Amino acid sequence: DFNYALENDIKPAFGRSDESLNKFLDGELLIYGSEVQKILEYGDLLVTQAKNPQSRTGLVRAVLAGAPQSGVSRLAAEIARRSDFPFVRVVSNGDMVGFSETAKCAALRKAFDDAKRSKMSVLLIDDVEQLVDYTPVGPRFSNLVLKALVVLLKEPVPKDHRLLILATSSDRAFLREFGLLNAFGHLIDVPQLTKWEHVMNVVTEADTFSREEIQKLRYQLEQLFDKNLHFGIGIKRLLDLIDLSRQCDEGYRGTELFERLEMLALSL
Amino acid sequence: DFNYALENDIKPAFGRSDESLNKFLDGELLIYGSEVQKILEYGDLLVTQAKNPQSRTGLVRAVLAGAPQSGVSRLAAEIARRSDFPFVRVVSNGDMVGFSETAKCAALRKAFDDAKRSKMSVLLIDDVEQLVDYTPVGPRFSNLVLKALVVLLKEPVPKDHRLLILATSSDRAFLREFGLLNAFGHLIDVPQLTKWEHVMNVVTEADTFSREEIQKLRYQLEQLFDKNLHFGIGIKRLLDLIDLSRQCDEGYRGTELFERLEMLALSL
Amino acid sequence: DFNYALENDIKPAFGRSDESLNKFLDGELLIYGSEVQKILEYGDLLVTQAKNPQSRTGLVRAVLAGAPQSGVSRLAAEIARRSDFPFVRVVSNGDMVGFSETAKCAALRKAFDDAKRSKMSVLLIDDVEQLVDYTPVGPRFSNLVLKALVVLLKEPVPKDHRLLILATSSDRAFLREFGLLNAFGHLIDVPQLTKWEHVMNVVTEADTFSREEIQKLRYQLEQLFDKNLHFGIGIKRLLDLIDLSRQCDEGYRGTELFERLEMLALSL
Amino acid sequence: DFNYALENDIKPAFGRSDESLNKFLDGELLIYGSEVQKILEYGDLLVTQAKNPQSRTGLVRAVLAGAPQSGVSRLAAEIARRSDFPFVRVVSNGDMVGFSETAKCAALRKAFDDAKRSKMSVLLIDDVEQLVDYTPVGPRFSNLVLKALVVLLKEPVPKDHRLLILATSSDRAFLREFGLLNAFGHLIDVPQLTKWEHVMNVVTEADTFSREEIQKLRYQLEQLFDKNLHFGIGIKRLLDLIDLSRQCDEGYRGTELFERLEMLALSL
Amino acid sequence: DFNYALENDIKPAFGRSDESLNKFLDGELLIYGSEVQKILEYGDLLVTQAKNPQSRTGLVRAVLAGAPQSGVSRLAAEIARRSDFPFVRVVSNGDMVGFSETAKCAALRKAFDDAKRSKMSVLLIDDVEQLVDYTPVGPRFSNLVLKALVVLLKEPVPKDHRLLILATSSDRAFLREFGLLNAFGHLIDVPQLTKWEHVMNVVTEADTFSREEIQKLRYQLEQLFDKNLHFGIGIKRLLDLIDLSRQCDEGYRGTELFERLEMLALSL
Amino acid sequence: DFNYALENDIKPAFGRSDESLNKFLDGELLIYGSEVQKILEYGDLLVTQAKNPQSRTGLVRAVLAGAPQSGVSRLAAEIARRSDFPFVRVVSNGDMVGFSETAKCAALRKAFDDAKRSKMSVLLIDDVEQLVDYTPVGPRFSNLVLKALVVLLKEPVPKDHRLLILATSSDRAFLREFGLLNAFGHLIDVPQLTKWEHVMNVVTEADTFSREEIQKLRYQLEQLFDKNLHFGIGIKRLLDLIDLSRQCDEGYRGTELFERLEMLALSL
Ligand SMILES: Nc1ncnc2c1ncn2[C@@H]1O[C@H](COP(=O)(O)OP(=O)(O)OP(=O)(O)O)[C@@H](O)[C@H]1O
Ligand SMILES: Nc1ncnc2c1ncn2[C@@H]1O[C@H](COP(=O)(O)OP(=O)(O)OP(=O)(O)O)[C@@H](O)[C@H]1O
Ligand SMILES: Nc1ncnc2c1ncn2[C@@H]1O[C@H](COP(=O)(O)OP(=O)(O)OP(=O)(O)O)[C@@H](O)[C@H]1O
Ligand SMILES: Nc1ncnc2c1ncn2[C@@H]1O[C@H](COP(=O)(O)OP(=O)(O)OP(=O)(O)O)[C@@H](O)[C@H]1O
Ligand SMILES: Nc1ncnc2c1ncn2[C@@H]1O[C@H](COP(=O)(O)OP(=O)(O)OP(=O)(O)O)[C@@H](O)[C@H]1O
Ligand SMILES: Nc1ncnc2c1ncn2[C@@H]1O[C@H](COP(=O)(O)OP(=O)(O)OP(=O)(O)O)[C@@H](O)[C@H]1O
Ligand SMILES: [Mg+2]
Ligand SMILES: [Mg+2]
Ligand SMILES: [Mg+2]
Ligand SMILES: [Mg+2]
Ligand SMILES: [Mg+2]
Ligand SMILES: [Mg+2]
Repeated sequence: DFNYALENDIKPAFGRSDESLNKFLDGELLIYGSEVQKILEYGDLLVTQAKNPQSRTGLVRAVLAGAPQSGVSRLAAEIARRSDFPFVRVVSNGDMVGFSETAKCAALRKAFDDAKRSKMSVLLIDDVEQLVDYTPVGPRFSNLVLKALVVLLKEPVPKDHRLLILATSSDRAFLREFGLLNAFGHLIDVPQLTKWEHVMNVVTEADTFSREEIQKLRYQLEQLFDKNLHFGIGIKRLLDLIDLSRQCDEGYRGTELFERLEMLALSL
Repeated sequence: DFNYALENDIKPAFGRSDESLNKFLDGELLIYGSEVQKILEYGDLLVTQAKNPQSRTGLVRAVLAGAPQSGVSRLAAEIARRSDFPFVRVVSNGDMVGFSETAKCAALRKAFDDAKRSKMSVLLIDDVEQLVDYTPVGPRFSNLVLKALVVLLKEPVPKDHRLLILATSSDRAFLREFGLLNAFGHLIDVPQLTKWEHVMNVVTEADTFSREEIQKLRYQLEQLFDKNLHFGIGIKRLLDLIDLSRQCDEGYRGTELFERLEMLALSL
Repeated sequence: DFNYALENDIKPAFGRSDESLNKFLDGELLIYGSEVQKILEYGDLLVTQAKNPQSRTGLVRAVLAGAPQSGVSRLAAEIARRSDFPFVRVVSNGDMVGFSETAKCAALRKAFDDAKRSKMSVLLIDDVEQLVDYTPVGPRFSNLVLKALVVLLKEPVPKDHRLLILATSSDRAFLREFGLLNAFGHLIDVPQLTKWEHVMNVVTEADTFSREEIQKLRYQLEQLFDKNLHFGIGIKRLLDLIDLSRQCDEGYRGTELFERLEMLALSL
Repeated sequence: DFNYALENDIKPAFGRSDESLNKFLDGELLIYGSEVQKILEYGDLLVTQAKNPQSRTGLVRAVLAGAPQSGVSRLAAEIARRSDFPFVRVVSNGDMVGFSETAKCAALRKAFDDAKRSKMSVLLIDDVEQLVDYTPVGPRFSNLVLKALVVLLKEPVPKDHRLLILATSSDRAFLREFGLLNAFGHLIDVPQLTKWEHVMNVVTEADTFSREEIQKLRYQLEQLFDKNLHFGIGIKRLLDLIDLSRQCDEGYRGTELFERLEMLALSL
Repeated sequence: DFNYALENDIKPAFGRSDESLNKFLDGELLIYGSEVQKILEYGDLLVTQAKNPQSRTGLVRAVLAGAPQSGVSRLAAEIARRSDFPFVRVVSNGDMVGFSETAKCAALRKAFDDAKRSKMSVLLIDDVEQLVDYTPVGPRFSNLVLKALVVLLKEPVPKDHRLLILATSSDRAFLREFGLLNAFGHLIDVPQLTKWEHVMNVVTEADTFSREEIQKLRYQLEQLFDKNLHFGIGIKRLLDLIDLSRQCDEGYRGTELFERLEMLALSL
Repeated sequence: DFNYALENDIKPAFGRSDESLNKFLDGELLIYGSEVQKILEYGDLLVTQAKNPQSRTGLVRAVLAGAPQSGVSRLAAEIARRSDFPFVRVVSNGDMVGFSETAKCAALRKAFDDAKRSKMSVLLIDDVEQLVDYTPVGPRFSNLVLKALVVLLKEPVPKDHRLLILATSSDRAFLREFGLLNAFGHLIDVPQLTKWEHVMNVVTEADTFSREEIQKLRYQLEQLFDKNLHFGIGIKRLLDLIDLSRQCDEGYRGTELFERLEMLALSL
């Protein structure tokens, strides 16, 4: 039952999430465009509100949503890191593989309870769709976990305590249809890289390509984005492709990268 | 089983709801328009009927329904507070996170039993959709809890006992389709703020904006509501936005608030 | 399991239903029109058949169906009361909140067994839809309980025993689609009040309005029913509205009642 | 589990079915038309085949299907009675109220095993739809029980043993869609009474009406069936209506019966 | 759990299937047309491949599919019998009535394990639809058992062991939609008797009809098949009808048979 | 529960998969066309990335997808073999027949944990559709296992550890709809043999046909592929057909093979 689940299934698994944000914060953050800057500023405003003792409420909530692989989790973690709140708690489905619905609800409740016990805390809920076991085919999802989440998001914090809840999602339609937009209040859009300048900003930082290759890539990408107006690529996938092309011999890397980007653009 | 659930899962959790209404009653009630006044009067009439020993029945039921964030729970709590009934019991999904359906039914039955044991009581059922774990996708809901609710709403109170049941809902269609309109009898509509005068009434009370800002906001809002005839905003969201704009430096707050309201109006 | 459920879940709860019919029989029965009279006569004929030792079978079944709040349960209880059968058993969902499907089946079987053990009995099954946990959305229902009911309705009574089964329902379509019309055999229609004369018969009995108010109501209602040809109101709701208007000061009650009736008619 | 279910749930309940056919055989069989005669002859042919030691197989199967209340069970029981087989076993849902699917399968298997152990037996399976908990809404049914039935119907009998399986059903479409027509092989149609001569044959036997009433009924019924070409009534319902009209005073019974038949015909 | 199920539910039931093929092999095989001959030859080729130590794989799989009652099981058993493999194992739903899905999977795995342990074996899986509890309404089926079957069909046999898997099915669409055509590889079509010559071949062998009757039947059947171009009858049903007509007195049997065949043809 | 499942259900079964790749590597690999060569090169590039200590991440993932029987598993195993990683772990549904969903999740987690514990490992997940019990009818699948897989694919490896995950699938649409394309990142297409040259490459290697037969087959296949532009055959099925034709006497084998290929082409 519930309490049993709380004791046995959860503690060991959740121990891991106490190491907190580090798994999302590998490498330096690339601010490849003004959109990234604006997201960080929105985050800072929410942090200010959460911290301010004169705020109407000690509970501030927001969800960051973007396409898969667009760096959503990284940005949420960045906002949490910058907040300098003493207690940061990460809830992620990776710590709950194979949990029963009841055990998941218990884990969720525990995470919220822990966060509220501390005077100032951030709760980062990574990938809400995965948390509620959402699959668009059917659709299938755990209604029990979804409802637990909605209810816990609404419960007030103790007097004088402050809680900032940040969640990530890769499906805006899901948030709307399942009533989570209302439950979170603030929605922060995380875009893909949709301009060649963005991509070049990342390419230049990559320490992988020779000057000539960069030159050529700039020209090629300008053409590519001109021809494919709706083309966009997530930061995570772009970094992966750069990494893959680094496996090629020097001199061939720029071509390798461009060919894979072109293939992506065509397959849209 | 049932009795076990009653003993173990419920008592501790439900202990909290005995602190009763306070979690809904933070800050002063703003009567931003005549609609709010009328709702309170309807509430008072029902309270009179519930109290009157000459009434046909000792059981009076009503449900308040409005869009999310429109202050529904606050108003239901206000009516309960004004009733001056000695016993007030709140049933809310927040106390039942992760409960099994059976445990929820047991908790419901206990709440009704407690309320009927007392000579005069108010039972406030917050967010009936959440109580029955309703999700419009599917749709999913707990039929067992729904049926328990419908049946408990119909059961008569003991002779000479008086019970006023107040519920809140954020989905009128749900109430109709699931047979709850008939089960409650009285439906009280809670509107959003749909006139600039309403919004200004709240803005003026907020102790946040300078006189000039208020002047300017009045003008801007008149325009905004004129252009967007169907625009409305819940009182809760409005208060949140005012609170967020208060984080800005003085002088910039009016602009911040208006920009966010404008964005909302456009996204409709 | 089954026997365990029989012992533990059921007895205490079902004890209550032995106080039998009284919960349905509060106040005097109003025969507000000839339709009510005819229903009672139909009931009497079935009682005669059930009693007559020369009948082909000792088992007579009927279901009363009408819109919600139209006094269906009251009329079924009235027929049962008039039968003067020594044993009357009420089966109602209110005694089974949160029961498992198996426990419900066991409770049903026990009710039928008890009724058949006695030489002459009436079994009143209130609100069959609720008994089988029917919700039109989905639709959802307990197939196990439904099938138990259908089967139990068909099982013959012991030789020389007499059993009259009376059920109530608020959804004729439900009865047809789920094969209950055939299972019950007799269907007794309970109408709403659809003529101003009916309403006036109730109003006059109510001891609430002054003579002038009654005069005026008669005129207003005639107009109302003339304009809204399909308007009808259940007796239960009408009595509730009269009761609510009684909370107003004398002289204002007639207006209060009429306004609420008018609102109902318009919302159709 | 399975064996446990076999021991505990089933034996007592199934004890009753050993009293066998009597519950279906109350009163004399009325052969109200040639259709009834032909059904009995078809039954006799199957009995001959089942008995004949030169038959290819010792297993003969048939299902009788007709509208509800058309005397299907009575006719199946009649064929079983006439067969003079020493062992007759009745399987009916009435003995399994609230059984789990597994317990039902165990009960079915036990019934078939018992029947096969005896050298010559008849197995009467009453109301196959109910046996598999079929409800057309959904549709819902117990797939486990259905599959158990299909498989058991196919299993050969021991050498030199003879088994006649007779089933009843009130829904031919169900039999076809669920593959039971093939599983049974023989389908015997049981019609309603669709001619006034049929009805008169029953009325004359009823010992209820005076000669003048019979005269008048004959004339009225001829008209009724002439006008309502598709009107038909099950023998069970007809006998019930005659029984109900017998509760009236002599002289009024014919009118009572005709009025109820007329109402039925109109409601089609 | 799994192992428990393996020990307790399965062993006794599966003991029966070790008597192997005999239940399918009653009476002599009738080769009523060249189609039957070709099926047997296809079977022999597969047997040769399975036996040949130079084959690429020791695992050969095929499914025989035909309309219900067309002798599918008989033919699969015949191929198995002719193979002269020392170990023959039959898996059929009749041995698993009321098994849980897990117990069925365990039984399946055991059957495959047994068959693979022996150096040369045939595994006959009768009626795959029934094995996976398939009902087209819904459709319903046991996904767990289906997946177990698909996976087990793919698992290689131990080195130098030989396994021939023969299955039967009465629904080709089922095989295709559920991915079983690919899992089996070889599909062998079993037709109905669709020519009067086929039927006459069976009739002549039947030792039931006089020469004149055979003469007349030949003429009548020629007409019947000419008029009903799509008429076909399964061998099993044909043998049953011949058997039924044998119950009539000599001289009437030919007419009886023809009338029943004619009725079948018309009901198509 | 979970840990129990981990201990009892899984260990013995999973022992088998430690013999690792051998069950997929029978016989020499046929590189029947340049497509096969390119797949191996893509695999090698991924292996290089996975091995390179300078890669951004120690986790590389790819899925090979092709029609059933097209040699997908063989190619994935080949890439794994060539990688020369010290630890290779195979996850395949064949080791989990009849497992509960929870046990499957536990087995999956264990496989990932084992692979991550080792410094350099390959994890081969054969047949992802089968792993999640996917059946297109319904569709049915184990959402719990699917979500466990998605989550485990995303979890980072320990610092300095290297993990290459290779999966196979026979349904590209499945991968897209269930979000697995994003979860794997790299998709490697495995084609069927769609040119007569491909087929001839295999036929020539087969050591089965005489020179004349090969000559004739070349001519016939050219015609066949010319006429049936969309015809393609999986390598596995082709090898099976060659093997079957080898059962015929020499001289007849070419004809046998061609006839079966022709039948396949026509049935498209
Ligand atoms: N702006 C950035 N600058 C540098 N690295 C980034 C940035 N955004 C993401 N990354 C890197 O990309 C990787 C994945 O990012 P992240 O987990 O945030 O993506 P995601 O959108 O959450 O992906 P998913 O859809 O898989 O959840 C991480 O290694 C992270 O360091
Ligand atoms: N009329 C009001 N005057 C002042 N404050 C109000 C008023 N209505 C609501 N609030 C404040 O707004 C907040 C939320 O209100 P409430 O919980 O009633 O909203 P709700 O409509 O129930 O929202 P939800 O849809 O989330 O349930 C509370 O802090 C409450 O104090
Ligand atoms: N004919 C009547 N005369 C007087 N009072 C009546 C009459 N019918 C119903 N009532 C009163 O109305 C109330 C509710 O009636 P009842 O329970 O029969 O309604 P119902 O149609 O069963 O309602 P529901 O749809 O809620 O089950 C009872 O208090 C009963 O006394
Ligand atoms: N041909 C008949 N002659 C006399 N009585 C009959 C005849 N057929 C049915 N009855 C009587 O009608 C009653 C019900 O018949 P039976 O149970 O066979 O009907 P049924 O069609 O099985 O009904 P159901 O649809 O409820 O199962 C029994 O009392 C039986 O005696
Ligand atoms: N070719 C045949 N020659 C002689 N008898 C046959 C032949 N085919 C089938 N039979 C007989 O018909 C009966 C049933 O055959 P079988 O079980 O193979 O049919 P089936 O197609 O599997 O039927 P089902 O659809 O019920 O599974 C058996 O008694 C068998 O002996
Ligand atoms: N390129 C190849 N060269 C030689 N043999 C091959 C080749 N590809 C596959 N095979 C052989 O075909 C057989 C099956 O191949 P494999 O299991 O890879 O097919 P698959 O596409 O995974 O099939 P399935 O759809 O059943 O999973 C194996 O015996 C394998 O040795
Ligand atoms: Mg993420
Ligand atoms: Mg609320
Ligand atoms: Mg009622
Ligand atoms: Mg019957
Ligand atoms: Mg068969
Ligand atoms: Mg494979």
